[in-house]
Amino acid sequence: MSDEVILLSIWPSMFGMRVQIALEEKGIEYEYKEEDLANKSTLLLKMNPIHKKVPVLIHNGKPVCESSIAVQYIDEAWKDKFPLLPTDPYHRAQARFWADYIDKKIYNASRKIWETKGEDQEVGKKEFIDCLKVLEKALGDNPYFGGEEFGFVDVELVPFFSWFYTYETCGNFSIEAECPKLIAWAKRCMERESVSKSLPAPQKVYDFVLQLKKTMGLE
Amino acid sequence: MSDEVILLSIWPSMFGMRVQIALEEKGIEYEYKEEDLANKSTLLLKMNPIHKKVPVLIHNGKPVCESSIAVQYIDEAWKDKFPLLPTDPYHRAQARFWADYIDKKIYNASRKIWETKGEDQEVGKKEFIDCLKVLEKALGDNPYFGGEEFGFVDVELVPFFSWFYTYETCGNFSIEAECPKLIAWAKRCMERESVSKSLPAPQKVYDFVLQLKKTMGLE
Repeated sequence: MSDEVILLSIWPSMFGMRVQIALEEKGIEYEYKEEDLANKSTLLLKMNPIHKKVPVLIHNGKPVCESSIAVQYIDEAWKDKFPLLPTDPYHRAQARFWADYIDKKIYNASRKIWETKGEDQEVGKKEFIDCLKVLEKALGDNPYFGGEEFGFVDVELVPFFSWFYTYETCGNFSIEAECPKLIAWAKRCMERESVSKSLPAPQKVYDFVLQLKKTMGLE
Repeated sequence: MSDEVILLSIWPSMFGMRVQIALEEKGIEYEYKEEDLANKSTLLLKMNPIHKKVPVLIHNGKPVCESSIAVQYIDEAWKDKFPLLPTDPYHRAQARFWADYIDKKIYNASRKIWETKGEDQEVGKKEFIDCLKVLEKALGDNPYFGGEEFGFVDVELVPFFSWFYTYETCGNFSIEAECPKLIAWAKRCMERESVSKSLPAPQKVYDFVLQLKKTMGLE
């Protein structure tokens, strides 16, 4: 049986990008369906009735929701191709720790940078940079988070890179000045076709955010 | 080499209880060290420098932080004994989905029940019951979340049962009246020694919360 794989997402979603990168790394053919969050498709509501959110990976009719879970699912369901998680249980736990850290800290801090102004924005910028510095330290002198090979933590974090220009422009600061090694890591990841194909252009994300801010009455 | 396993936690922590249950199910000998969160041990600060939180599992000197990650680590590091996660990738993704749901929804809703009063408390009670009903539906007519066998989702959720008396007393409502099947499931889990040994008495949790509310100036 040939696999039917569908990804429901919206193009600026860093969570959707994670799933795309994992599918690309594994060489899995899939159909991408762009959702309209203001008018969610019947398929999305059926496939993710609990959270009603993107991304949703649908494999032969069965949904996998939540991006980190979808990336692990892809790794386990297509386990013979390009492993994303390491095999050693301790290294797996470490990879999951950093993925969890990114989910708990980076997204919330990053939203404050473009959603708020003044003092709240400064708090967001500081939190965001502090988190990136923690991650930069975890990366150390390795080319990737898991060591020599591109893997799970890289897949989880690198989509945020497509939003860095937006954060920098909205927050009037330079991420590279604060975290040069992390930017070098992101550029290294961008040399992979799986990543460069999955990440939208920074300017396109920024235009989207400007439009979103207008819609949200933030400008 | 014999394994040295240490668990740093505090006894009322449902997250610590998860790790205890997993260790008990696997028949792993371990040393339990009670932490004082007002005066964290040097060991805790060294082993979890990022979050500085309990629980931390320390296996032969190496820390695993975050309870869900620690439970998965235990399952993978001692994989020959009593598997907690299923083997099928799709069933694994579903188990992770519900564990993630519990982490994202149940804890936050439950805190509102004992930390707040009036309208905020009512919101917390409604959120909490709504979440439990979603979980009860996911359980269906199975004895356990994974089907016939006690497993990962059971480990993740059942520690909250030791707090149910506290929620009910603080919120003046009956969880059993709302979710009878879920209570039957919790009692079924409590018949396992791994669970009954790891969960504190409901009255003891309630006394702890009354004390905590005084300390927090909530009474």
